[in-house]
Amino acid sequence: MKPENLRLILASGSPRRDELLNTAGLFHEVIVSGADEDVPEPDPCVLVEKLSARKAEDVFRQVEEEKDFAVIGADTVVALDGAILGKPHSEADAARMLRLLSGRAHHVCTGVTLHGRIGGRECVRTFCEVSHVYVAPLTEEEIHSYIETGEPMDKAGAYGIQGGFCRYVTHIEGDYFNIVGLPVSRVYRELKVFCS
Amino acid sequence: MKPENLRLILASGSPRRDELLNTAGLFHEVIVSGADEDVPEPDPCVLVEKLSARKAEDVFRQVEEEKDFAVIGADTVVALDGAILGKPHSEADAARMLRLLSGRAHHVCTGVTLHGRIGGRECVRTFCEVSHVYVAPLTEEEIHSYIETGEPMDKAGAYGIQGGFCRYVTHIEGDYFNIVGLPVSRVYRELKVFCS
Repeated sequence: MKPENLRLILASGSPRRDELLNTAGLFHEVIVSGADEDVPEPDPCVLVEKLSARKAEDVFRQVEEEKDFAVIGADTVVALDGAILGKPHSEADAARMLRLLSGRAHHVCTGVTLHGRIGGRECVRTFCEVSHVYVAPLTEEEIHSYIETGEPMDKAGAYGIQGGFCRYVTHIEGDYFNIVGLPVSRVYRELKVFCS
Repeated sequence: MKPENLRLILASGSPRRDELLNTAGLFHEVIVSGADEDVPEPDPCVLVEKLSARKAEDVFRQVEEEKDFAVIGADTVVALDGAILGKPHSEADAARMLRLLSGRAHHVCTGVTLHGRIGGRECVRTFCEVSHVYVAPLTEEEIHSYIETGEPMDKAGAYGIQGGFCRYVTHIEGDYFNIVGLPVSRVYRELKVFCS
């Protein structure tokens, strides 16, 4: 079976992941997971893999479908000097994160879990994709202007590369869409294996 | 003066460049250049720099404004094994280009020229930004399905990374937005210097 013909369910409320899957031609339903996201885990890749697996499993249990399908769970964090940056708690927290990112490189880690049923059998695949992002030195004025746009507040690391922050990202290495929130080419390749 | 406060004119009819500048907060007018785009030049970086300079100069001459302003000219090509891929001439040409790109890396070169007036003086800056793009191996079925979407026909190298082709791009090195058609972070930095 081709990934395009499999029933796909995105276990995430992120409008960016929803749009990315549609852009890639991977049409799907959305069922937002109610899984507990409180996982004490210092390794960013292990953390996002665990969180993506929880989300996918939660929605898999809700669906309980006999026919073939795949739930896609995903979670993204920014990693820098061993610290993990999730979504900011406040504008001051967003400013703190943006000061940390200014003038240097960081990693963006997205964990993805495919959890579904293929030929009647329950299948699970989990992986983590890492991209490197280089940010130009930011002035305090640039940081505050960016926070005023409201963009940082629902995003890991307090920025969205696809929004106004694009003018500060000088270079990336890895999958761009992974930085947006979902490594679509990896998801497509893994779905091909998942379906086969 | 800050780039945001300078009168900016984009000398390109590309809706993608228009949208990128807006996303980056660099609001502008659009005046499409009528410059001759037939330049015999084998080096992709030199070619796009020359073409961007022609477009910017053409619009600069049309504007003839005494107050400060900057025209942004840009041109993008795909480079592979010394060959330069522009926009495909036909669907067969698009298929030929996509077969060349399949399963390997290529370069995307965007030349940009800023041509304007600062403090009453005519100023010109030209540069070329290069990004590397890694494409997954494509089957003939994938190539034909992609061509059927109509996306390849107005794009250098017959693909748009921001569209359905995203599922085949495994990795990039450099500026993602350069691959879309305009290196916005470089443009922003160069505009800061241009204005100063």
